Amino acid sequence: MRIVSSILPTEELQQQVREQFPEDTFEFYKGLKGEDAYHAFLEADVFITYGEDLEEQDIERARNLKWISVMSAGLEKMPFEGIKKKDILVTNARGIHKTPMAEYTLGYMLHHAKRMDAFNQEQGNKKWNRRIPTQELSDATLLVLGAGAIGGEIAKRSQLFGMKTIGVNTSGRPAEYFDQTFSMDNWEEALPLADYIVSVLPSLETTKHLIQEKHFKQMKDSVVFINIGRGDLVQTDILIKALQNKDIAHAYVDVVEEEPLDESHPLWSVENVTITPHISGKSPLYLPRAFDIFSHNLHIYKGVPGEMRNVISLDRGY
Amino acid sequence: MRIVSSILPTEELQQQVREQFPEDTFEFYKGLKGEDAYHAFLEADVFITYGEDLEEQDIERARNLKWISVMSAGLEKMPFEGIKKKDILVTNARGIHKTPMAEYTLGYMLHHAKRMDAFNQEQGNKKWNRRIPTQELSDATLLVLGAGAIGGEIAKRSQLFGMKTIGVNTSGRPAEYFDQTFSMDNWEEALPLADYIVSVLPSLETTKHLIQEKHFKQMKDSVVFINIGRGDLVQTDILIKALQNKDIAHAYVDVVEEEPLDESHPLWSVENVTITPHISGKSPLYLPRAFDIFSHNLHIYKGVPGEMRNVISLDRGY
Repeated sequence: MRIVSSILPTEELQQQVREQFPEDTFEFYKGLKGEDAYHAFLEADVFITYGEDLEEQDIERARNLKWISVMSAGLEKMPFEGIKKKDILVTNARGIHKTPMAEYTLGYMLHHAKRMDAFNQEQGNKKWNRRIPTQELSDATLLVLGAGAIGGEIAKRSQLFGMKTIGVNTSGRPAEYFDQTFSMDNWEEALPLADYIVSVLPSLETTKHLIQEKHFKQMKDSVVFINIGRGDLVQTDILIKALQNKDIAHAYVDVVEEEPLDESHPLWSVENVTITPHISGKSPLYLPRAFDIFSHNLHIYKGVPGEMRNVISLDRGY
Repeated sequence: MRIVSSILPTEELQQQVREQFPEDTFEFYKGLKGEDAYHAFLEADVFITYGEDLEEQDIERARNLKWISVMSAGLEKMPFEGIKKKDILVTNARGIHKTPMAEYTLGYMLHHAKRMDAFNQEQGNKKWNRRIPTQELSDATLLVLGAGAIGGEIAKRSQLFGMKTIGVNTSGRPAEYFDQTFSMDNWEEALPLADYIVSVLPSLETTKHLIQEKHFKQMKDSVVFINIGRGDLVQTDILIKALQNKDIAHAYVDVVEEEPLDESHPLWSVENVTITPHISGKSPLYLPRAFDIFSHNLHIYKGVPGEMRNVISLDRGY
């Protein structure tokens, strides 16, 4: 089979994939814009992509394409009309963000509990100050908005740190690694219980601007709010107000409504916020993990018994 | 029994202890210097202390003292001569540091891997900079110098984060939560293997100045060195040299040879070091945990079947 990729991994990773499938040909390109890359794509049986370089007309022109392996979780830019017409198999890399995102969350919870900013400031002042009171995660309560695969990974590690875990999912059904769950109908009741609140919610009609001013007031004053889902969960001016009013103690935001956040935006200057530029899911292990899923799927595609992972329903689009 | 404490816990904690032992009298003082406190001590059956307020003459004068419950791990300042002569039982609070110290270690490993300082600096510059490369703990190798209770707690959590764990203990015997162990005879062979090295070693003849210039050179250039044991593990000028030469990438030091570190000390100004003022073992849960051990022991002292925890051998002194 001819396998064409518009993603150029390291030589080492290319080698690993080739060695697993010696009877197939692999061509790796950096993007699809070059003539060689595009011609290869037109003849490919399998195409590997981040899912942002295809138009309807490309799907029409592709002569042999039977499977598109998207190496990300987002499929918003995929030309599904043509894909459906040609009944092309689509898979994605759902699930590979959970490790870096769980590390990010535990890291910043510990950053807060251990007062790392305060000690850093004292180091700048050359002061050996033992009076800064630190906290523990142990015995604290974590609320995860979005108790799915990523939320579960965060909860799993938090439980090992001795935290109580509460999850919110659509139905409120029990979920692994959560001591308690709430549904989207009564999620507000969970807000006063938490010492740390992390949202991994995607952007949906039901989650857009879900968190309002009143919700911040329902939280403990000492609460830490972490958003690694989508920025439109809360309007930035409402977040700023909650931080300035000290309705909450601190926010760690990896996502904001206006990405990239402009230099002139007032959020940068709020005292009790930590901003990171939508990097919680980034990892040097991203592509190795994505190619692990691909290799697993290619084995099965070629006849090894088993089930392919992350097959996308062309009707639902996820 | 008359139980006298030179530690003054919160009213809530006092209440909890009293309720468990309604037939005994508890007197809590802030220190032993006050006349009331000292007179109470002289008649006490059981004395609760941080272990730094007793002299030989106090032991002589104490009329009824049968048990000293030291609420810390350090016993260096205890007047063991008189204690031995009177055969007074001594217990300590060994083991209650492992949770905060494990949180500290995981927190600062994540601080490094997630480049929190770099993102903090970019926030100061109001720059949304997605090009700062972050790392994962997952797949990295942790070397723990001192694979005991605290080291094991660190290794346990690190394994859950997908790290490989190597431990050094006296004999090199296998230890729970460690994938591999080295003895004090061949510990240097472990140095090149590690991405993170944490020392929890106490100050002993065999550990003083254990880490020399050559050892930093044996480590990976990218290694992160964390010292939460004792500061005399490495001479500070040797550490500074290793940091300035980039023999190692970064050091997180909670302990130094000269505590408190003077304002004029050059270590404060080294670029790739993070200094905290010997606080890794501190926790708001410290006293509750120490009194948990005390209550367990008091039940058994009063006749409930079971074994007392952390009984000190008066001959060995630990």
